[in-house]
Amino acid sequence: MIKDMKWWGWGDPAFVFPMDEKPLLWPFIQKTLGLADDCPKTPPVERNAVRLPQQKLNADFMRAINGFLKATQIATDDEQRLIHTYGKSFPDLFRVRRGIVDNAPDMVLFPESHADVEKIVPAAKQFGVRLVPFGGGTNIVGGVEHLDHSAMRVTLDMRRMNRVLSIDRESWTATIEAGVPGPKLEEDLQALGYSLGHMPDSFEFATLGGWLATRSAGMQSDQYGKIEDMVVAMKMVSPAGTIETKLTPKSSAGPDIDQIICGSEGTLGVITEAVMKVHPVPEVKDYHGVLFPDFESGAAAIHEAISRNASPTMFRLQDIAETGLAFSMKKPSEGLSGFVQAQMKKYLKAKGYATPCLMMVGFEGEPDYASAMRRKVLPMMKKHRGFHLGNSVGKTFQKNKFAVPYLRDILMNHGCMVDVAETAAVWSKLMPLYRAARDRIQAQFKEEGYPGYIGCHISHSYVDGASLYFTFAARQIKGKELEQYYRFKRLITETFMQNGGTLSHHHAVGYEHRPWMEREVTRPGLTLLRGLKKTLDPDGIMNPGKLIPHEGANPDAPTPSTTVP
Amino acid sequence: MIKDMKWWGWGDPAFVFPMDEKPLLWPFIQKTLGLADDCPKTPPVERNAVRLPQQKLNADFMRAINGFLKATQIATDDEQRLIHTYGKSFPDLFRVRRGIVDNAPDMVLFPESHADVEKIVPAAKQFGVRLVPFGGGTNIVGGVEHLDHSAMRVTLDMRRMNRVLSIDRESWTATIEAGVPGPKLEEDLQALGYSLGHMPDSFEFATLGGWLATRSAGMQSDQYGKIEDMVVAMKMVSPAGTIETKLTPKSSAGPDIDQIICGSEGTLGVITEAVMKVHPVPEVKDYHGVLFPDFESGAAAIHEAISRNASPTMFRLQDIAETGLAFSMKKPSEGLSGFVQAQMKKYLKAKGYATPCLMMVGFEGEPDYASAMRRKVLPMMKKHRGFHLGNSVGKTFQKNKFAVPYLRDILMNHGCMVDVAETAAVWSKLMPLYRAARDRIQAQFKEEGYPGYIGCHISHSYVDGASLYFTFAARQIKGKELEQYYRFKRLITETFMQNGGTLSHHHAVGYEHRPWMEREVTRPGLTLLRGLKKTLDPDGIMNPGKLIPHEGANPDAPTPSTTVP
Repeated sequence: MIKDMKWWGWGDPAFVFPMDEKPLLWPFIQKTLGLADDCPKTPPVERNAVRLPQQKLNADFMRAINGFLKATQIATDDEQRLIHTYGKSFPDLFRVRRGIVDNAPDMVLFPESHADVEKIVPAAKQFGVRLVPFGGGTNIVGGVEHLDHSAMRVTLDMRRMNRVLSIDRESWTATIEAGVPGPKLEEDLQALGYSLGHMPDSFEFATLGGWLATRSAGMQSDQYGKIEDMVVAMKMVSPAGTIETKLTPKSSAGPDIDQIICGSEGTLGVITEAVMKVHPVPEVKDYHGVLFPDFESGAAAIHEAISRNASPTMFRLQDIAETGLAFSMKKPSEGLSGFVQAQMKKYLKAKGYATPCLMMVGFEGEPDYASAMRRKVLPMMKKHRGFHLGNSVGKTFQKNKFAVPYLRDILMNHGCMVDVAETAAVWSKLMPLYRAARDRIQAQFKEEGYPGYIGCHISHSYVDGASLYFTFAARQIKGKELEQYYRFKRLITETFMQNGGTLSHHHAVGYEHRPWMEREVTRPGLTLLRGLKKTLDPDGIMNPGKLIPHEGANPDAPTPSTTVP
Repeated sequence: MIKDMKWWGWGDPAFVFPMDEKPLLWPFIQKTLGLADDCPKTPPVERNAVRLPQQKLNADFMRAINGFLKATQIATDDEQRLIHTYGKSFPDLFRVRRGIVDNAPDMVLFPESHADVEKIVPAAKQFGVRLVPFGGGTNIVGGVEHLDHSAMRVTLDMRRMNRVLSIDRESWTATIEAGVPGPKLEEDLQALGYSLGHMPDSFEFATLGGWLATRSAGMQSDQYGKIEDMVVAMKMVSPAGTIETKLTPKSSAGPDIDQIICGSEGTLGVITEAVMKVHPVPEVKDYHGVLFPDFESGAAAIHEAISRNASPTMFRLQDIAETGLAFSMKKPSEGLSGFVQAQMKKYLKAKGYATPCLMMVGFEGEPDYASAMRRKVLPMMKKHRGFHLGNSVGKTFQKNKFAVPYLRDILMNHGCMVDVAETAAVWSKLMPLYRAARDRIQAQFKEEGYPGYIGCHISHSYVDGASLYFTFAARQIKGKELEQYYRFKRLITETFMQNGGTLSHHHAVGYEHRPWMEREVTRPGLTLLRGLKKTLDPDGIMNPGKLIPHEGANPDAPTPSTTVP
């Protein structure tokens, strides 16, 4: 039922990234990052070399929970503590691969119902125990790490709360427990004929509650919205009691409490259930590739389409660098089809597509709707010099979409730093922001004297703007790996903030983005967030140290991870 | 620049409702409400009979504002105090028509810039002065009335802050001062080639800031969204400082502060500016009438269309009673066209449309888009037995849409109670809720022994549900007019709450809906709202007594207006 990821990296322990099927990929990486054939191997430490810190157990709390939880819902073993120590950011993996797990929880609890959570939270409040809600553990901004060493640290693994509780076929809404991971959620809904349609990169492991707590965005968000647009009503157990928001399509009865809970990252309470908008399983899922001569043309094509009501299910436009990486993952064709491809490549090069940008565009829904949308959208792509590659690229994309995150583990095994950073901005600021971030990181590689990779794609588009998703990688500087990483992380985040980007479009704040929160929401905005926290969690037991900077905090203070040796 | 409404009623003092052009209307009303030809006339008192209460002026505050405001920005005269005493609910008009204005402000200020507001709010905080922000004064839930008699009461008339500050033609966003009323907003935007597309019944008088503070919904919300869906960023001056939210299409940097400000009804601060999504002025505005044999068929047609991506700019479906009222406003045709209409009526009656329900459906945008949507939507209407009346009815609707609210003044001149109540629910609850509310009010008329009117329309539709907008009217019970009114108001609100409706879909809470807030948001939800208030307005100077019930308040306690003799 609960599919844990590798303790030292991303994803299914049994999955092996099919490097052999992609003979061009490793040479591409070697060239881009300047990796010699004999580059240093940096595997994770052996599992038995990892020493978990001594447990701090609160006897009163233990007694209380033993009164209402079964023994199978309580774990204090090192295996569970290790698996629940970190999310999956680069600093998370860097530390865990070295066996650094100082912030491991003392205990992991597995609530099986809303009622369980309604007992756990008051007990934690009563005995001053710190609670961190944990979904799939895919967070990459430090969202699930315990930071408070002053008391017993308990992680709530929500994944036994994974049922679709009810479906309203007339209103297209489903009431769902928050701990359900993506695959089971879709499986259960699709057995009823429905789909949520939320497929972020974290899909295979992350949970509904984690998505809601962090304002996640799925690949098909252009059609179905971000997760906060799909929510109709919620239950959150806070230390001040259970908030249950109104089941209504819209309301004007005060501030929107759903939109306070979404993005609260476990700092206000534990999301236990949500009523979500669902839709019948799309009869058609039709994904196409389109090639653009440059990133700007592709972005202009998206912008025109989306503002003229030609809004497909997905637009995903990769810049030159990311397209190069994507093409390196292709299996080279042989024989006739290889010949045809080579000719095509020559033709495209002559036509101005020497360093092209690849767009995936998807159409889902009823057959009439999907094909009408395709007939509307593709000509607009052509108008902006989009060269239609057909839907075979689309099929490859659909097949591979969840394999890419595994690549990072291979790179980390070869002494490389890899991470992602994302933002969003209005259209008038988008391309300048893109160029500023790309150029700034490239300049930094140059300044530090080693080659590096920075690529970007647009993955979520709106009438008023879009998001930019960057991936950056380089060889690690031995002995200064985290300093090096944070230099880049800060540079790119600073560049976002200085060029009109938001601090995060869908990865949330955790502690990694906390130093920029004051600039994001203004100081009185921070006062407001602190007021929310004080109101619902006056004792500060819920996910301490996340989202909201402490009052009087030095915005330039290092984040916890930089203090790790 | 500032177009005040009648002090004793709705709208432009110069406008006369064209009763003479509608010879069927008054007989229809007389019959429906049982009004005799010689029914009592109940005109408002003469203006000079209205005695404003004695002013309570805080000398320190006066000195402070005289230091930074011009004399023309400060009004203490009775004319301004009277005009700013109330909104336009039935109890508001009932009281002002009798000259009851105990809650008049002591002073009205006219800020001309964000900077003015940033000086006024701290001065009010310093000297304990109560502030009520005032836009068009169209609120019908008590939103602009001063309730706190313990200190000087100042109303901020925002309507001099009425400029479009900038437009971003690439991102389709405009930065707009919050005090701009609908007509000037559209005029200024349209001069630039853009439109906001927000046209609620209050359009002619209400302001952007008022709409945002109350989560207003315009007639074209199916295409452009409710006002809270159109907002990109905001500035709000709170007693704890100015919150400026991030200009970004979407973010995951914490709870959505825009969605906290929207619906805060002036209780947290004064909205001074907003960045709004705008769109090019639609080339086509094509409105059609469709007749349904009953309300359920029309609702099913809307539901199918909107869930199959056939979502026009507006669906507005009137029930039998409201359609009867609408038809009574038609000028009877004479000669040949009268003959044709009579034949048509016979034909429709024979086909099952004896007591029909009228739907208005609108298509706006680029010509291709609007006509494609029309070709998609109208056949779906037909499938649900919709009889297409063509677009002449649409033109009549467009012409008359802002005249109807004037009718209430005529009824109040003839001893009648008239008011509206609205809600929203998911589709599975919508028709049962509709029938429950209609039947409950009809049963009450019967129980009280006089005829009455209750009509309803669906005006805002979503994939997961829709809103219901009721109008009810009856003869007043002399000497017990407010008790009678509140009996009906409570009955219908209770029926909403017991049948899965929200407390309000777009009229907000004010003090009229406050007693139900705990049931709407749960007790911990109320704790959260109180925490917001305490954080941003610890001294309680901002619009006291609105939105959030006092801690320990008796939910059944009478609202302020029932205590008026």
